[in-house]
Amino acid sequence: MVSHEMLGAGRVRSAIRELFEYGRRRGQEVGEENVFDFSLGNPSVPPPQEVTDAFIDLLQTSDPMTMHGYTSAPGDNGARDAIAASLNRRFGTQFSRRNLYLTCGAAAALTSTFRALTIDDKTEFIAFAPYFPEYSFFATTAGAKFRVVEADTQNFQIDFTSLEQTINPHTQGVIINSPNNPSGVIYSEATLRKLAGILRAKGAEYGHPIYLVADEPYRELSYLDEQPPFITDLYDCAIVCYSYSKSLSLPGDRIGYVLLGNDMPDFDDVYDAIAGSARVQGYVCAPAVLQRVVRRCSEQDVLPDLTIYRKNRDALYNALSEIGYRCIPPDGAFYLFVEAPNGDGDAFSELAKQEDVLIVSGRSFGCPGFVRISYCVDHETILRAVPGFKKLFERIRAG
Amino acid sequence: MVSHEMLGAGRVRSAIRELFEYGRRRGQEVGEENVFDFSLGNPSVPPPQEVTDAFIDLLQTSDPMTMHGYTSAPGDNGARDAIAASLNRRFGTQFSRRNLYLTCGAAAALTSTFRALTIDDKTEFIAFAPYFPEYSFFATTAGAKFRVVEADTQNFQIDFTSLEQTINPHTQGVIINSPNNPSGVIYSEATLRKLAGILRAKGAEYGHPIYLVADEPYRELSYLDEQPPFITDLYDCAIVCYSYSKSLSLPGDRIGYVLLGNDMPDFDDVYDAIAGSARVQGYVCAPAVLQRVVRRCSEQDVLPDLTIYRKNRDALYNALSEIGYRCIPPDGAFYLFVEAPNGDGDAFSELAKQEDVLIVSGRSFGCPGFVRISYCVDHETILRAVPGFKKLFERIRAG
Repeated sequence: MVSHEMLGAGRVRSAIRELFEYGRRRGQEVGEENVFDFSLGNPSVPPPQEVTDAFIDLLQTSDPMTMHGYTSAPGDNGARDAIAASLNRRFGTQFSRRNLYLTCGAAAALTSTFRALTIDDKTEFIAFAPYFPEYSFFATTAGAKFRVVEADTQNFQIDFTSLEQTINPHTQGVIINSPNNPSGVIYSEATLRKLAGILRAKGAEYGHPIYLVADEPYRELSYLDEQPPFITDLYDCAIVCYSYSKSLSLPGDRIGYVLLGNDMPDFDDVYDAIAGSARVQGYVCAPAVLQRVVRRCSEQDVLPDLTIYRKNRDALYNALSEIGYRCIPPDGAFYLFVEAPNGDGDAFSELAKQEDVLIVSGRSFGCPGFVRISYCVDHETILRAVPGFKKLFERIRAG
Repeated sequence: MVSHEMLGAGRVRSAIRELFEYGRRRGQEVGEENVFDFSLGNPSVPPPQEVTDAFIDLLQTSDPMTMHGYTSAPGDNGARDAIAASLNRRFGTQFSRRNLYLTCGAAAALTSTFRALTIDDKTEFIAFAPYFPEYSFFATTAGAKFRVVEADTQNFQIDFTSLEQTINPHTQGVIINSPNNPSGVIYSEATLRKLAGILRAKGAEYGHPIYLVADEPYRELSYLDEQPPFITDLYDCAIVCYSYSKSLSLPGDRIGYVLLGNDMPDFDDVYDAIAGSARVQGYVCAPAVLQRVVRRCSEQDVLPDLTIYRKNRDALYNALSEIGYRCIPPDGAFYLFVEAPNGDGDAFSELAKQEDVLIVSGRSFGCPGFVRISYCVDHETILRAVPGFKKLFERIRAG
């Protein structure tokens, strides 16, 4: 006597989580140091010192009633002011607190956005493969249909031909995730401009805006010298879903935001519907103490130290490329997306377990010919895993 | 082009919040000290010292990657073990971590539960007036119907005749909130046993369990010498939704849990459906750092200091009763529910503004003839507001 849909969502197996659990069991058998676990996208560098300092200072010096008290549903004014000011300094934008609605991380931002934009059971959301598998749950349980545009497996930008075939009058939102999980690719300015142009044209043709939902938890994890423009500068109907999980290494603490651009035509409706959606899902406010910590960090423009991730990326990319793997050059995040040398991500991921190398098949991301390697691990793990990767490649080449 | 339902939820005016905002504006006109704001249910005592100590110690001594890292979706094992052990010590229960699913406060626990139990568009949830207004949103946006059993305005226990008229084969859940917001009343053991008996009988008659959703954020705010039994000891199909917002004065930080009893017949289905529901709403895990703090506090059985609330309750109840108001004797929480002397909570609440006394009409709680007075305020505020309450009473008596 429970909802079948919710029971299904509670019982469905996550390939990533399963692999991680396998790794823990295997580690107990052969020793943890002999298992090369590249399964999870968990930050492997600690939070910047400013985070811990802000936390402790706030706890020691603030009025605890204010510190732990309810904030307004959109979030503390001071926190939203500080986040807006930091974005404006860093990206030349013109935001204020009214652009921001603080959330319990990006997942809450996404579910609130999808639910706000779902107007009837014909509503559709489009994602581009490879995509984060939870999008599908979030969209369908909001009551919408989830459509996938097939991957551009050459450059992992956007297959616009496939997009034009998929978009239709029921499309309410198109989801992008750049830097991308699992490919590590950052969409170029040209890609984003072309996408914006298509969405504008289709919106005009259909007589309603098509929202661009930009899931940006990896925004600050970019190895490029020059960043593409802020998405709201390229498209008026962009909705940014952000999380501090990766940039401040606070994944468990659940703090992030929804941001709407100033030029969104129906700004108030979208903002209020997202607020309503957060409310009915039981998000009273984003964790208050984390709002205060993020405020402090925003005031100082605290950014992640990418030294370790960059070192890992270079070592892994170079070693695997040298062996002969086709690796997608990662511009950001902490994932390397690699073509399975036997053409089958599932089979290759399974085979890799024989070398105690744990990598995730691309199937659940919508790219079954690839595997994802999360390099948010100790650098030593990468170096010591290389012989295993080499053996695997040679075995497949030998047939 | 947004969901009408979500837009409505985002724009609906909360009577409580409106009154609070009015009070802030009015305070700027006449001086904050001249406005007697009894509108909000915000804890007025700081978190116990153990909370701040635990927070700071964890930040100073724990591995920050663990401290702020993702936990499993149901919550950190150590935190769930500690909560279960504390309940067992205090209530003689037999819980373990498997009974608990940690959430972002009671609101998240309720939305996850309602959604898990909503099997089709005929599903109904029943609440007893007076009730917390958000229940209605949570139930209807989960896709169910929301039914109200009229209040027992004599004792504010349960009107069982009205319950028997309301319950039907589509009833999936019955919501209780004891100690109650807004009445402050605690259901007696006799009331709970009678309720359990009816639900058992009706469940047998309809051929499916009727879940008893016990919303218990005020459980630890009881002024009774003897507490009623733990609800899962009285009814197998009880689902407890708990929050530390009031007991540890952490309302903004969003930490709580869902708890299922050991004897629930379809335990795994209900647990997994709640997990699925939390997942699709974007609740990745309850805020990790708060899980650790609650673990520490549970290990020490930290309880709220009720001295201040009790003093406020006694002063307010005695003063208003002496004036001639009919006050419902509050056994718990920090609310006094008072019959409007003119019989109309809306009109009386409006009239009270003329004395700068801000009290919430009972209408949105389903009791339009009453007003709620939140006594989680400075003790002085209560003493200084008494003359205003007296004037109001006399004006009404004078016609």
